[in-house]
Amino acid sequence: MKVGIIMGSKSDLPVMQDAADICKAFGVDFEITVVSAHRTPDRMFHYAKEAASRGIKVIIAGAGGAAHLPGMVASITTVPVIGVPVKSSNSIDGWDSILSILQMPNGIPVATVALNAAKNAGLLAVQILSTAKPELAEKMQAYKDDLRQKVEETAAEMEG
Amino acid sequence: MKVGIIMGSKSDLPVMQDAADICKAFGVDFEITVVSAHRTPDRMFHYAKEAASRGIKVIIAGAGGAAHLPGMVASITTVPVIGVPVKSSNSIDGWDSILSILQMPNGIPVATVALNAAKNAGLLAVQILSTAKPELAEKMQAYKDDLRQKVEETAAEMEG
Amino acid sequence: MKVGIIMGSKSDLPVMQDAADICKAFGVDFEITVVSAHRTPDRMFHYAKEAASRGIKVIIAGAGGAAHLPGMVASITTVPVIGVPVKSSNSIDGWDSILSILQMPNGIPVATVALNAAKNAGLLAVQILSTAKPELAEKMQAYKDDLRQKVEETAAEMEG
Amino acid sequence: MKVGIIMGSKSDLPVMQDAADICKAFGVDFEITVVSAHRTPDRMFHYAKEAASRGIKVIIAGAGGAAHLPGMVASITTVPVIGVPVKSSNSIDGWDSILSILQMPNGIPVATVALNAAKNAGLLAVQILSTAKPELAEKMQAYKDDLRQKVEETAAEMEG
Amino acid sequence: MKVGIIMGSKSDLPVMQDAADICKAFGVDFEITVVSAHRTPDRMFHYAKEAASRGIKVIIAGAGGAAHLPGMVASITTVPVIGVPVKSSNSIDGWDSILSILQMPNGIPVATVALNAAKNAGLLAVQILSTAKPELAEKMQAYKDDLRQKVEETAAEMEG
Amino acid sequence: MKVGIIMGSKSDLPVMQDAADICKAFGVDFEITVVSAHRTPDRMFHYAKEAASRGIKVIIAGAGGAAHLPGMVASITTVPVIGVPVKSSNSIDGWDSILSILQMPNGIPVATVALNAAKNAGLLAVQILSTAKPELAEKMQAYKDDLRQKVEETAAEMEG
Amino acid sequence: MKVGIIMGSKSDLPVMQDAADICKAFGVDFEITVVSAHRTPDRMFHYAKEAASRGIKVIIAGAGGAAHLPGMVASITTVPVIGVPVKSSNSIDGWDSILSILQMPNGIPVATVALNAAKNAGLLAVQILSTAKPELAEKMQAYKDDLRQKVEETAAEMEG
Amino acid sequence: MKVGIIMGSKSDLPVMQDAADICKAFGVDFEITVVSAHRTPDRMFHYAKEAASRGIKVIIAGAGGAAHLPGMVASITTVPVIGVPVKSSNSIDGWDSILSILQMPNGIPVATVALNAAKNAGLLAVQILSTAKPELAEKMQAYKDDLRQKVEETAAEMEG
Repeated sequence: MKVGIIMGSKSDLPVMQDAADICKAFGVDFEITVVSAHRTPDRMFHYAKEAASRGIKVIIAGAGGAAHLPGMVASITTVPVIGVPVKSSNSIDGWDSILSILQMPNGIPVATVALNAAKNAGLLAVQILSTAKPELAEKMQAYKDDLRQKVEETAAEMEG
Repeated sequence: MKVGIIMGSKSDLPVMQDAADICKAFGVDFEITVVSAHRTPDRMFHYAKEAASRGIKVIIAGAGGAAHLPGMVASITTVPVIGVPVKSSNSIDGWDSILSILQMPNGIPVATVALNAAKNAGLLAVQILSTAKPELAEKMQAYKDDLRQKVEETAAEMEG
Repeated sequence: MKVGIIMGSKSDLPVMQDAADICKAFGVDFEITVVSAHRTPDRMFHYAKEAASRGIKVIIAGAGGAAHLPGMVASITTVPVIGVPVKSSNSIDGWDSILSILQMPNGIPVATVALNAAKNAGLLAVQILSTAKPELAEKMQAYKDDLRQKVEETAAEMEG
Repeated sequence: MKVGIIMGSKSDLPVMQDAADICKAFGVDFEITVVSAHRTPDRMFHYAKEAASRGIKVIIAGAGGAAHLPGMVASITTVPVIGVPVKSSNSIDGWDSILSILQMPNGIPVATVALNAAKNAGLLAVQILSTAKPELAEKMQAYKDDLRQKVEETAAEMEG
Repeated sequence: MKVGIIMGSKSDLPVMQDAADICKAFGVDFEITVVSAHRTPDRMFHYAKEAASRGIKVIIAGAGGAAHLPGMVASITTVPVIGVPVKSSNSIDGWDSILSILQMPNGIPVATVALNAAKNAGLLAVQILSTAKPELAEKMQAYKDDLRQKVEETAAEMEG
Repeated sequence: MKVGIIMGSKSDLPVMQDAADICKAFGVDFEITVVSAHRTPDRMFHYAKEAASRGIKVIIAGAGGAAHLPGMVASITTVPVIGVPVKSSNSIDGWDSILSILQMPNGIPVATVALNAAKNAGLLAVQILSTAKPELAEKMQAYKDDLRQKVEETAAEMEG
Repeated sequence: MKVGIIMGSKSDLPVMQDAADICKAFGVDFEITVVSAHRTPDRMFHYAKEAASRGIKVIIAGAGGAAHLPGMVASITTVPVIGVPVKSSNSIDGWDSILSILQMPNGIPVATVALNAAKNAGLLAVQILSTAKPELAEKMQAYKDDLRQKVEETAAEMEG
Repeated sequence: MKVGIIMGSKSDLPVMQDAADICKAFGVDFEITVVSAHRTPDRMFHYAKEAASRGIKVIIAGAGGAAHLPGMVASITTVPVIGVPVKSSNSIDGWDSILSILQMPNGIPVATVALNAAKNAGLLAVQILSTAKPELAEKMQAYKDDLRQKVEETAAEMEG
């Protein structure tokens, strides 16, 4: 029961690392690598075709510009795919990344998260896995409690 | 093991019905109702708080304009939430619906699908449930095979 | 007769401080704190439900990205809510913040001001309170006279 | 204690009538007329200068395209001004109306509502007046209760 | 020496037919069919891999929404690919189609034409082929002369 | 025969100075000052009303954000008004400035130039004045010849 | 002393006719014809080069999509050029027409009016000519008085 | 058999150099110079008219803002024109450059590549020339193989 984290370019790693960190924090097994839809189409096909049989239960795919990686992987596998639009240097303020990941045609969904939001992609992967592993839902609740507590502390400080 | 389908307004039903139809087609239990973040905030809180304990494993939430329903439900529950941006009559070409669902802050993901793509929301819900119920992945493969076959038939016709 | 200033994250404070400064300058009582719609939904509900009974007459709520705080607070209270779209680091040039605050559905208004314009939110709050306290309208006139005078001085200089 | 409803062109009336209807429904005195910033600048100046002394406590100003009416009126009066961006026939999907009303410089706020949302402008005016007339807050609560109830009825129907 | 015209869905045919008509008008051999990147990824790979060896010298690929077909085909073949963004029903005013075709990363170009401009895609294909077949450049000059003449006739009429 | 250059704020001067420099270069009389539509509405009215009688033949008005100055001045005077959208710090990438200057309703034109293009505003003013002073057209031709020559020199260098 | 009205395509005539009608109404001599930058580049060059010597004092050029006509004419002549962005059928909501007319580089201004605003182009042409013919300024004042009066009548009716 | 690389301004050279570098790398003859549609319209006409007879088989034209160079050159020659939208300093985030190059009317195609993607323009030129020179297709395959290999190496490292 593993999360597969892929990205279109090594330059996406500073963004995508957040997804890996969330997996670690929740004790979820994962692997992380580069798979380029445009520069390694065969590798991408192979990755998507083998993912399920290799025990991958969720794929997190990040890419920028004309970002085809999440949608193409989703077209090949039945594993749920989470898309992370990356605001790469060649992107037009991120609009191209967002629209080319989000606007998938009927039949082939990609679960899109916010621009550069690899952390949320990691959390969504954990939530998806929690369908089969209820203890992850408990950890998620603890994570949410922690978020809440930190805001309450900040609020207490500000209210002085 | 149920999918909860909610929408901000009854006027979203023609769009959101597609999600229900997919659940039916895949033999997945679901319920469908109206929950407005803005007009019934207590109902929304109650719905989100009780969802997990009522056996709901995935929530599909559709809304238009300043669409707060998916994000607010996601802030309250640990169940994965799929957001459907609806191009309602008061929407600015759908941009407001998309951005207010997609651009969630770190910590609270919403799995956003394309504008009006409730069918894809249904398919994504099935994929998520397949984490725990492998037979759904098989059905999903059959569904994909069917999509493929239809395109191939159309292609054969067009190639005449 | 108090203004409640809230923000989704402590990182919004440099922007939101302007609203507090205007309250101070006009001698209007205010309180300022962090209330996150997404990380502290219960706190947000509680804040909005209690606001009126605690003597709050206007709420100024600032948030960035998928900014649900102003609209959700407006859905719970009858107190007028002023929304400040914040161009936070995770925002797409501010468009997400603006649209998710501005485009509220019929029935639940939010008085939206310009991107990052917490100063204008403060001034609008003073104008709203002046409905009940006419001396605030006089102070506002003096404030406007001052703005005018400064432009006239600059003009005189430039005309040399 | 009156609401002044103005619009840049008679063609905005089908949109702006909603503001008048809300005033009527809440028993709030109002007047409604055409004031064009561009075709009747003197009239606009006069209207804005006299508004406060004529007992107007809130101004609702609707306009489309390069919509200068709300901001210009706000520059002249100390009365709070609510701006309604109208998607007129010469507007670019409403973006011009929204941005030229919303993006007021520091010092001169306009309380902007959603595109074509004159109903929300009316409700916001009522909320502003409730600062001085608490019974309006009670009516607003009843209005919100009614909204809630209608959603609950629709939900009950849909849940069948 | 053939042009391959492909489209993501049969619903793109009314737009894409224009490319075929241009080929016919210039006496250029072509084939036209449906190849969906998302519903028939294997077919798409196969098409792209075999294109060059089947004598295809230019590929015209049209698609709407998250339009991955032109870019994916371009990633697999060395044949020049012309992309036609189609304003399909699920597109956001065509922006998604344009950006997901145009914004290809360095290394993998797609020659993008205007929204729905399959006619221009056909003309561009003819121009590309004219590199090897100079008589096509002559026909293109005649085509341009004809365009010019028609405008001149209209002008003469209008000048009356 | 004078050009009146005005701007909404002293902070627009680094942009607007270019218009003055062009006037100087062409030997055209001009004056330059600050006139704020929102902070000095009376001054703006007075300026616009007196412009023609003071011998001003063209007005160049620059402003940012919800930029009402060019359009309001145009509504009051019969002198042609050139609008310069300024990308000020409170502007959303300049879109607000552009749309609130450009999208004037029928009846009240503003001659809009590119974002921050005060130099072009100056050149356009010269062209307008050349209607009455043909020697300005000759100077303009010399200016264009100079532009051409510089490009040709650069080209010669690059071609080496 | 003539206005030259040109358009990129006969299909722009329903929009551009408004400019001609204004010329007629103000007793200004004009000519109107089709000049396509893309289909008749030689004709366009010739038109622009001869305009001044043929007595044309202002050129109004309307075009849609990638609208190069106004800017190219402006690059060739010293006569002031007014650009009318036309929302043609192949335009993306008019954004392409607006940006390709408005965003001219320094050195070559085009006086851009609102989308489809050929009437304003006509009025601006009259204002430009009034630099040399003061009686046109008087007619313009009468035109403005008429606009004002019509609004006042509408207002009187609505206030009824 | 030469590629002609032109740009509207010397300031575009840092972007456009990439196209030249690709030509060099593939052993394709090229020339590079400045041709401004707006400052040297005659030079532009001459360049476009003579291109074919001078042996130029593909033209790569880069420009920013209201970028008319690629489209105007395409209107004059029958040689295929590749347009590179440049995000110049006077551009609105590149949108103006993109739309004024991409949205050419039917009849006059420009093969548009991504914002600042002169490298892809160079590669596309090579692909076009490969229609007549098959050895270029082989080199292109080698180039693609190299891209693939580099990604695979990066992936191997990351998988560590």
